[in-house]
Amino acid sequence: MTVSPGPATLPPMFESAELGHKIDKERWSAEVPQLRADLLEAQYELVKKKGFSTVVVIGGIDGAGKSETINVLSEWMDTRHMQTTAFSPVDHEISGRPPMWRFWRSLPPQGKIAVFAGSWYTSPITLRAYGEIKSNQLDHALVEIRAFERMLTDEGVLLLKFWFHLSKDRQKKRLKELSHDDRNAWRIGENEWRHFELYDKFVETSVRAIRETSTGNAPWTIVEGSDHRYRCLTVGRTMLDAMQKRLAKPEAAKAPTGVRTPPITPSIDGKHLVTSLDLESKMDKDKYPKEVDEQQGKLNLLTRHPKFKKLSVVVVFEGSDAAGKGGAIRRVTQALDARQYNVISIAAPTDEEKARPYLWRFWRNLPEDGRIGIFDRSWYGRVLVERVEGFCSEADWMRAYGEINDFEEQLVKNDTVVVKLWLQISKEEQLRRFEERQATAHKQHKITDEDWRNREKWDAYTQAVSDMIDRTSTELAPWTLVPANDKYKARIQVLKTIHGAIRDFMS
Amino acid sequence: MTVSPGPATLPPMFESAELGHKIDKERWSAEVPQLRADLLEAQYELVKKKGFSTVVVIGGIDGAGKSETINVLSEWMDTRHMQTTAFSPVDHEISGRPPMWRFWRSLPPQGKIAVFAGSWYTSPITLRAYGEIKSNQLDHALVEIRAFERMLTDEGVLLLKFWFHLSKDRQKKRLKELSHDDRNAWRIGENEWRHFELYDKFVETSVRAIRETSTGNAPWTIVEGSDHRYRCLTVGRTMLDAMQKRLAKPEAAKAPTGVRTPPITPSIDGKHLVTSLDLESKMDKDKYPKEVDEQQGKLNLLTRHPKFKKLSVVVVFEGSDAAGKGGAIRRVTQALDARQYNVISIAAPTDEEKARPYLWRFWRNLPEDGRIGIFDRSWYGRVLVERVEGFCSEADWMRAYGEINDFEEQLVKNDTVVVKLWLQISKEEQLRRFEERQATAHKQHKITDEDWRNREKWDAYTQAVSDMIDRTSTELAPWTLVPANDKYKARIQVLKTIHGAIRDFMS
Repeated sequence: MTVSPGPATLPPMFESAELGHKIDKERWSAEVPQLRADLLEAQYELVKKKGFSTVVVIGGIDGAGKSETINVLSEWMDTRHMQTTAFSPVDHEISGRPPMWRFWRSLPPQGKIAVFAGSWYTSPITLRAYGEIKSNQLDHALVEIRAFERMLTDEGVLLLKFWFHLSKDRQKKRLKELSHDDRNAWRIGENEWRHFELYDKFVETSVRAIRETSTGNAPWTIVEGSDHRYRCLTVGRTMLDAMQKRLAKPEAAKAPTGVRTPPITPSIDGKHLVTSLDLESKMDKDKYPKEVDEQQGKLNLLTRHPKFKKLSVVVVFEGSDAAGKGGAIRRVTQALDARQYNVISIAAPTDEEKARPYLWRFWRNLPEDGRIGIFDRSWYGRVLVERVEGFCSEADWMRAYGEINDFEEQLVKNDTVVVKLWLQISKEEQLRRFEERQATAHKQHKITDEDWRNREKWDAYTQAVSDMIDRTSTELAPWTLVPANDKYKARIQVLKTIHGAIRDFMS
Repeated sequence: MTVSPGPATLPPMFESAELGHKIDKERWSAEVPQLRADLLEAQYELVKKKGFSTVVVIGGIDGAGKSETINVLSEWMDTRHMQTTAFSPVDHEISGRPPMWRFWRSLPPQGKIAVFAGSWYTSPITLRAYGEIKSNQLDHALVEIRAFERMLTDEGVLLLKFWFHLSKDRQKKRLKELSHDDRNAWRIGENEWRHFELYDKFVETSVRAIRETSTGNAPWTIVEGSDHRYRCLTVGRTMLDAMQKRLAKPEAAKAPTGVRTPPITPSIDGKHLVTSLDLESKMDKDKYPKEVDEQQGKLNLLTRHPKFKKLSVVVVFEGSDAAGKGGAIRRVTQALDARQYNVISIAAPTDEEKARPYLWRFWRNLPEDGRIGIFDRSWYGRVLVERVEGFCSEADWMRAYGEINDFEEQLVKNDTVVVKLWLQISKEEQLRRFEERQATAHKQHKITDEDWRNREKWDAYTQAVSDMIDRTSTELAPWTLVPANDKYKARIQVLKTIHGAIRDFMS
């Protein structure tokens, strides 16, 4: 095969995508029926086994046949189990959630395939090509994307990324062709021609993005976009190979069980941040009513500040069993207008939630601008109960620290105040409260056998809490430890902490 | 008991709510602990049995203690299983969905309680009191509400409605008190005083709304709002009674099985609209490619009209097995920008869907303005497969016709074009296609044992389809019957029908 070299500036990555790949009609007719049958078979095995979900990201240059290829895929496969989502540059339904929110909400459940036309790459690449973000901002976006994709694949998602490329000459030709075709002329507007003017810049930026994100777990496939049959066969075959391989080795859907991070060594002297808290100090009970009133008033005032409409607040309540989370939450909600907040109580996940990465059910409950989401337990369950009870593997909870930090970073950078409260009581105080609960009619529901069982694992939980705080108390979203043997003092501290965090964020 | 009569204009309904009901501290202290324990017990039984959900609607006059009462309920009950949602007058996330959309999306699953602060009553009552809608528009809104609530209760929702009342003098006093209380002053703004100016108009409108919607299945409880202890005890006791009764008689959660509508008599001569179709007529196959191209082009053009951004489109595809729904859908989507449409394939409901009224999963998939939702099978499953296979009771599918008509009316009135397509093939053609599918590798997945079983029930399905068309082909959302033995002709008719419906709606 003779290779006609591209212009000197052509990045090596795209060289093979400017060779003029072409599939003739005969080969197409010979291969397509079997490919279709195989793709469908793989799809139905996926539907049946439900072991993982498949996300197909379609990116690339205008006019390179992205939507035509997606149409063919829809024809080849069963669209009852394959959903195509096209992401517009803006989405007004996002209402102040982080940019990743709309991709999260479109993640398919296990057993299904999602085709994304446009993706988390569209915005950083476009903004950079237009010079609206700096080089290091692009770098940072790519680092975030890598972490996000790592999380997806660790959670078992089969992630396939296709980049459709055209040489500059071919793109120009293609855009002209489309403009003169009645059916497609609408696709080519000012935007497309403006993009074309920036062709070199786009290619340069894409190459960088592709290089930085072509990871072992989610590599890019570059597709030359000039020949319809070639691009369809390439995408179809690549999908088929990847699905067949994964179906044959279902264990590959799991994150590597070999833990690569250093193990966590239990505190040698048994001392932990949480056990060093002064749990005994009390506040004057007589002063409490006035104080709680005052703090609630202050918090209330803050939430009616005009600036408050431009941010959102996420408050995480975690703590020992019987530490008084419920009571503390009520003292917070009493200060708020019921239209402003939601209490999200985390219980067992539903089947829609179980079929997706574990953070999905928190993403779907994020508050919009001007609102407060109060989480009664949270994503930290992954590194607390799931770790201690062995509901997930060590590898799973070990990677969760980083995933959670990434998640919270996205929140904070998107003007969400993240307040994380750990309510700690002593083992003795817990016993006292358990016994009191059993003795009081309207409190009996609060105490179950499970609580007693958890209590037996007090030390394991203490270790898990310490590790959690060490690894996730970041400068963007620090933990606040609340000594809670005295519930009055604890409630005041909770109110003050939330107030302080919002006030600091607004100023 | 001596009744001090209110002013002459006082509607009898509210007389008892101006008596100055009051509960003293002793009775409160004596009764509350048991009430709390009982409420919790009922709540836990509900959580355990999951037989129904409870929706508590809180409405009434400003300053009558609605939010204070909700706070107390949150204190008494377990908020992990009770969610309070306060509805703002406007909600920008609604993005063009019908006004009821936000209530639907907040419906609790079975086993849970939802408290609604503000409801479907807020808007019609307020608009009428302000004179912004006419008397007959209020009437129409109330008729719709009654149908909606009937549907909820028929679906097993325990619906409790509380109206908080205050006399005019008391309201004035209360608003003044609140204005002078630092913590609550923010609650009383211009709006509240403006409402107060309209007190008489508000009361008159509320009385009418309450009277018209105090049905056997969802009666109102009027609560005098001046005494905190009285209003809390009233709401708490009413909730407790209703929940206990329902828990004791779980069959009451089901809609009455006695069918009150006249039975459907099968066509005496075996003739049906669908069987009278001319299925044999064909189009010239040579003309098809040009024709499909032309129709797709026309449809595409229409969806890029500026007016299109202000409406949404719902296309329902139903039809005999193997009638070619999938192929027809693809001919439609080929004409559209992938960012504009969603294909919603209706398969078995998820557990989140099963725990709610059957229309919930369609509400959650409604397209926003400027978008097209293509339903591959739909809510009509209720009166087709669920009826024929006995998945729901006769009473359930009999009431579904009316519920569906109401649902579609809400869509159309909210600027949604509703296109309903029934694709019909002959029994012989179906056999031919089944056999062809079994013989073709990439079509085998399309044919299952279930298809053969359904085929044996051909006559029962034909009857169900005829009844469906008779009862749901309304002037707002008519059915289009598409003879589909010739798939080319069918596809052209599908494209033309969708185009025509959108065009007529826009003009």
